[in-house]
Amino acid sequence: MARVSQEHLEARRRQILDGARRCFTRNGFHATSMQDVFREADLSAGAVYRYFRSKDEIVAAIAAEALETVRGSYASAVAVDPPPTPDELFGAVLGHLRKALGESGDDGRELPQLLVQVWGETLRNPQLAQALTEGYEGLRAEWVKLVEEYQRLGWVDPDANADFLSRALIGTVQGYFVQQALFGGVRPDEFQEGLRALVRMSVPRVDDDAR
Amino acid sequence: MARVSQEHLEARRRQILDGARRCFTRNGFHATSMQDVFREADLSAGAVYRYFRSKDEIVAAIAAEALETVRGSYASAVAVDPPPTPDELFGAVLGHLRKALGESGDDGRELPQLLVQVWGETLRNPQLAQALTEGYEGLRAEWVKLVEEYQRLGWVDPDANADFLSRALIGTVQGYFVQQALFGGVRPDEFQEGLRALVRMSVPRVDDDAR
Repeated sequence: MARVSQEHLEARRRQILDGARRCFTRNGFHATSMQDVFREADLSAGAVYRYFRSKDEIVAAIAAEALETVRGSYASAVAVDPPPTPDELFGAVLGHLRKALGESGDDGRELPQLLVQVWGETLRNPQLAQALTEGYEGLRAEWVKLVEEYQRLGWVDPDANADFLSRALIGTVQGYFVQQALFGGVRPDEFQEGLRALVRMSVPRVDDDAR
Repeated sequence: MARVSQEHLEARRRQILDGARRCFTRNGFHATSMQDVFREADLSAGAVYRYFRSKDEIVAAIAAEALETVRGSYASAVAVDPPPTPDELFGAVLGHLRKALGESGDDGRELPQLLVQVWGETLRNPQLAQALTEGYEGLRAEWVKLVEEYQRLGWVDPDANADFLSRALIGTVQGYFVQQALFGGVRPDEFQEGLRALVRMSVPRVDDDAR
């Protein structure tokens, strides 16, 4: 057997994952067969099985990549001083994501639709659920640090629970992905503007005393 | 053929949908066969097909019910004067939902997991996508009215775009469903506390001028 370079192996793996992702985006995980993947990636069954033993392995690899893309985007966006506000952070992360995925225009639905499918898949794939839970825990820990920084800056009540607030903030981003995946046409800059209004609401604190 | 009462028809339909929902929650839409539904609902194929011609029809009926439950909960919760703050609204809606679904305890994952599956299903079922889009547009219109009320009360900048802010607020609730479906253990009262801190952040407005 001929020796193949690392670059060649990487390129083949890439070719398979890109083809599979196109299939999944178009038809969903379940309606996609390995035959569809061979055809879309323009490779033989043997060539594909050398890299992935099953469709589940491909799904797991694609989910891990998507998670890594999101985390990497977050890490680049948050590493500035002073820290970005939640709306600025959203804008920066989405900007990084679009660059990383090479998407043009403002309403890229491929990643959001892939994420929604990955979420559904975790409900019956314990390995995927485990990977997603770990990714989420990591992201949550980073958000907690950011919220604590907000508390030092006086942007958040020092008595507020940083973990609970983090979940609500992460929730807004998950909500963006849901809306974009399902309905489309959500311009990131419009969603960012909505977030800006959200973190600048002035709900009277008097309610807290009455509780 | 014996005449059957409306109550009987309703009860049978209920029995099928409840059985199917249990199957879907456990195994997902795709891995559930009509045979699974017959068994779980404890009815014959003939009895089930009298009500639903296909699994897709059952999925559509369950999705429509879930949407209606969410909308009904929202409508009851918002109809008070003065209007609820977003965190109060979340708490009230979740309370109504739990009552409507007869769930006990604080971490009911059945509805969230069903919703995540419905979302995934819309990506390849145009009819379902259409139903969900209509439900979402209706909910968004109601949220816009609420945000305009907030603007009258001075809780939201009068220059803010009410539609964009509505999307961000709806996003927090979608985020709750994602987190609860995927990771569980999200107590609604904790998420509500996070939302309370979110709508009471005081991010300096000076940023707006610099933009």
